[in-house]
Amino acid sequence: MPRISRYPVPELADLPEDMRQRILEVQQKAGFVPNVFLALAHRPAEWRAFVAYHDALLLKDSGSLSKGEREMIIVATSAANQCLYCVVAHGAILRIYEKKPLVADQVAVNYRKADITPRQQAMLDFAMKISQRSHEVDEADFATLRGHGFDDEDIWDIGAISAFFGLSNRMANLTGMRPNDEFYLMGRLPREKKA
Amino acid sequence: MPRISRYPVPELADLPEDMRQRILEVQQKAGFVPNVFLALAHRPAEWRAFVAYHDALLLKDSGSLSKGEREMIIVATSAANQCLYCVVAHGAILRIYEKKPLVADQVAVNYRKADITPRQQAMLDFAMKISQRSHEVDEADFATLRGHGFDDEDIWDIGAISAFFGLSNRMANLTGMRPNDEFYLMGRLPREKKA
Amino acid sequence: MPRISRYPVPELADLPEDMRQRILEVQQKAGFVPNVFLALAHRPAEWRAFVAYHDALLLKDSGSLSKGEREMIIVATSAANQCLYCVVAHGAILRIYEKKPLVADQVAVNYRKADITPRQQAMLDFAMKISQRSHEVDEADFATLRGHGFDDEDIWDIGAISAFFGLSNRMANLTGMRPNDEFYLMGRLPREKKA
Amino acid sequence: MPRISRYPVPELADLPEDMRQRILEVQQKAGFVPNVFLALAHRPAEWRAFVAYHDALLLKDSGSLSKGEREMIIVATSAANQCLYCVVAHGAILRIYEKKPLVADQVAVNYRKADITPRQQAMLDFAMKISQRSHEVDEADFATLRGHGFDDEDIWDIGAISAFFGLSNRMANLTGMRPNDEFYLMGRLPREKKA
Amino acid sequence: MPRISRYPVPELADLPEDMRQRILEVQQKAGFVPNVFLALAHRPAEWRAFVAYHDALLLKDSGSLSKGEREMIIVATSAANQCLYCVVAHGAILRIYEKKPLVADQVAVNYRKADITPRQQAMLDFAMKISQRSHEVDEADFATLRGHGFDDEDIWDIGAISAFFGLSNRMANLTGMRPNDEFYLMGRLPREKKA
Amino acid sequence: MPRISRYPVPELADLPEDMRQRILEVQQKAGFVPNVFLALAHRPAEWRAFVAYHDALLLKDSGSLSKGEREMIIVATSAANQCLYCVVAHGAILRIYEKKPLVADQVAVNYRKADITPRQQAMLDFAMKISQRSHEVDEADFATLRGHGFDDEDIWDIGAISAFFGLSNRMANLTGMRPNDEFYLMGRLPREKKA
Repeated sequence: MPRISRYPVPELADLPEDMRQRILEVQQKAGFVPNVFLALAHRPAEWRAFVAYHDALLLKDSGSLSKGEREMIIVATSAANQCLYCVVAHGAILRIYEKKPLVADQVAVNYRKADITPRQQAMLDFAMKISQRSHEVDEADFATLRGHGFDDEDIWDIGAISAFFGLSNRMANLTGMRPNDEFYLMGRLPREKKA
Repeated sequence: MPRISRYPVPELADLPEDMRQRILEVQQKAGFVPNVFLALAHRPAEWRAFVAYHDALLLKDSGSLSKGEREMIIVATSAANQCLYCVVAHGAILRIYEKKPLVADQVAVNYRKADITPRQQAMLDFAMKISQRSHEVDEADFATLRGHGFDDEDIWDIGAISAFFGLSNRMANLTGMRPNDEFYLMGRLPREKKA
Repeated sequence: MPRISRYPVPELADLPEDMRQRILEVQQKAGFVPNVFLALAHRPAEWRAFVAYHDALLLKDSGSLSKGEREMIIVATSAANQCLYCVVAHGAILRIYEKKPLVADQVAVNYRKADITPRQQAMLDFAMKISQRSHEVDEADFATLRGHGFDDEDIWDIGAISAFFGLSNRMANLTGMRPNDEFYLMGRLPREKKA
Repeated sequence: MPRISRYPVPELADLPEDMRQRILEVQQKAGFVPNVFLALAHRPAEWRAFVAYHDALLLKDSGSLSKGEREMIIVATSAANQCLYCVVAHGAILRIYEKKPLVADQVAVNYRKADITPRQQAMLDFAMKISQRSHEVDEADFATLRGHGFDDEDIWDIGAISAFFGLSNRMANLTGMRPNDEFYLMGRLPREKKA
Repeated sequence: MPRISRYPVPELADLPEDMRQRILEVQQKAGFVPNVFLALAHRPAEWRAFVAYHDALLLKDSGSLSKGEREMIIVATSAANQCLYCVVAHGAILRIYEKKPLVADQVAVNYRKADITPRQQAMLDFAMKISQRSHEVDEADFATLRGHGFDDEDIWDIGAISAFFGLSNRMANLTGMRPNDEFYLMGRLPREKKA
Repeated sequence: MPRISRYPVPELADLPEDMRQRILEVQQKAGFVPNVFLALAHRPAEWRAFVAYHDALLLKDSGSLSKGEREMIIVATSAANQCLYCVVAHGAILRIYEKKPLVADQVAVNYRKADITPRQQAMLDFAMKISQRSHEVDEADFATLRGHGFDDEDIWDIGAISAFFGLSNRMANLTGMRPNDEFYLMGRLPREKKA
């Protein structure tokens, strides 16, 4: 079986209880343990911060960004950073949330060609700017996004998701993190009812 | 007084107790509250994850990277990302840790010209690769760093600090975060004994 | 049904006989007509040259490049050019030729992380150099490839496939060519016996 | 005499009749055999497709692009790809078609400074976008060109010429194709009446 | 004491009288001899031309650019060229002229975030365009600057200062020129009355 | 007649005597007044410094760089900066000095393909590094050049010529400087005996 990280990967059984519990929850939901949870568990303190940050951005209920839209941001920016783990894993989640089997590949290759709304295009333009040249962000960007119906808290969400997954992309590239084989097919089959 | 963020900035008194305590500790040590703690406090859940990640990377005692070397990584990569807050704030901390009033400006402008060791140059070469083109990281990078005496845990530290401050840089650019005026002069005066 | 091109798309029945025959052959083999054959048919003379060039590079039997390897070159360089049509369509063909359901996504996102041989990595390094900075090609590139067992005819093949699909990528981006929905799933299911 | 290609170059007498006829025609017109016809003849099937594509784009009579304008596109994009063969050979043809001895060097160095019309500037802006970042092409580009009097078939011509010579540039850089010495001076002398 | 240049550095006493006089003047004003005057003195003829060009741009009284604004141009463009000498030395002069201890670091890290006027932002946008992609300068740039109250002579000044310090940056990087330690602190202390 | 500069161009008769004398000398030698002398004469103090710098680098007799080699540096780096004036004017001078009618176009389009020696290739590699990323210059560059027989004074010459013409390129792009029509043909005709 191919290694999932350049670094030692702990056994689930050897992890502190809080980490183990969180991972078991994910496993129950996804049917397997996504490798990021095991690969980053090599460093428990960093793992806890990473998961807390992830949850703060992706699990919260407020704001106008749908869960699928948050995944679009992850897939588009991770493709720009050439992060195999994040494109494959979050591509799967995007397909499932959006119930659109094609959208993840479209967003990964060229989001300008994806079957998404103009509002979502504008969201991804900004996410890419944060990802690739955040030093040029200015008031005009905020005005453009407000013109598409995003408020300032939404804009923070877009920027923060792009920024956080920029960290995630770099950790995956550092560790040579390997996506689970399961992700590649998830959400691609039309009848796949409960995923 | 100039705004320190595009977003609302909470009053210290209005923050949850755990956040307030942590901020008061920093204030006691630094003599003032670094703006990042207030600007990001607009989002408490994200703030807690951010501070936990920061502490896991910068406060830990293990590994061969000195505290000054960790700050070098922050300053070099933040300059590449043109993040005003991080270059100014961590430049100050770098000067103080290294007790070298010139090193922060050198590392910020062109780390290849800085008064640092070849080992530190190699460390910054890798930090910059993680920051700017992490998708090209490969085994040869690990071999080079090992040749300079870094072990794999040190390499994780270098990469993770670069990755985490890439997130920090993007949040600072998103929020228009302003560095405290105090940072600009810190560590520049020779006799400045206790800072 | 979404448009497959910014330009008028001819009906199969309206095409000259030679074009219609060639397209029916592909349809029989694939089960559907790949959109590139219809979108480019707007210009019959260019279509004939395009298909002849394509066939000369991909259908020939000589040389040491396997059919799967030729598709790897197409997928890697088309991803660099952000060509949705070519990544999706040739990703499908790559999966089928290699009988490896994961390899196309790996090569598309970051070929340095793909489950391929060092010889294939070197092949893709050169294909990417032809694609992105062919003006820097020099004798050292030929020496590297010969060291991996490629002869000069193989090197022409690698370069010519990269160059030809650079043309294809630009035509797809010009016309806004849309990949057939069928491609996205092809070659992903383990039992998919005859595809 | 310097080699004209890294690869074996066939003798005219050894080529299949159709290729030989076509080459003799060019020789009669130009006074010599342009090296591209011999260098690419190493692969007859690819040669035939290449020449057919070339002719479909450059010899057709329809559309509003003059023959000189088509050569401008070739020279500008080939300079961006640093293709010595195409800049020198098509620079010569451009001078002759336009009867302007300076225009080729102007377009090759910086087309924004060339003695051409605003319509031709817009044409070259789009040709360069197809050449360098075709993934960003969108409806606004079409609107701009229509504003300069180009119809959609003209826009296809501009894009296809840019795309095809991107292939040609890469083949020339792959093979180290050398331009004939004759091209350098062609069309530079005012009285050169019939070229 | 660290070397100030890769090349031999003449003694003040060994220099021709005109050079010695000019350097003594600077020393009297600054309190020390800026290393650029000694490092470039290795080539007297080039030194004289360099100093004459410098003086023509920075010592002249005409035009609407203040002395501080000229230094802003130098600091912003030198940071883009990663020239340690020029950022540190002219950062000091900028602080002193503007009597603003923070402005130099702001302009060096990201001039878009600096405490400067919109007119100064536009000035730096153009200086950066001359520095990084002067081939794209066009009439629209002149119109923008005129809209901020600059006349064409001011625009020449902005462009020429950017161009001249591009030369200076490259000479400093070629020679490994080291800034005097004194520059780092100059103009940072509020009461520093006469500097 | 097309304008040679965006800025006012003085009449030869109106210039100060020293400038007029220098220009008449050039006119006598070249047969016409190169436009750079008139366009930059709009600012006499800058003109004098520019010409003095130019002469210090190009008219000196010491060092191992031939006059033709100095022109190669100018043509290669000016092409990278897309400076029409310098490529055309110095291309002409290069042809004449080297008595090789093809070399200037080769160096301008892709110096890696030019009919020059490996030593000259290494010289141009370094000139391009100074021109495009001088912040990365290090001791290894000096070692490479010494391996080709250049001493440190030669290396200064290479770097300084690249740096100075970087200034010249930017001034030409700022002023929209137009090359004299005469340059385009100079040195192209084999018998052109006395040039």
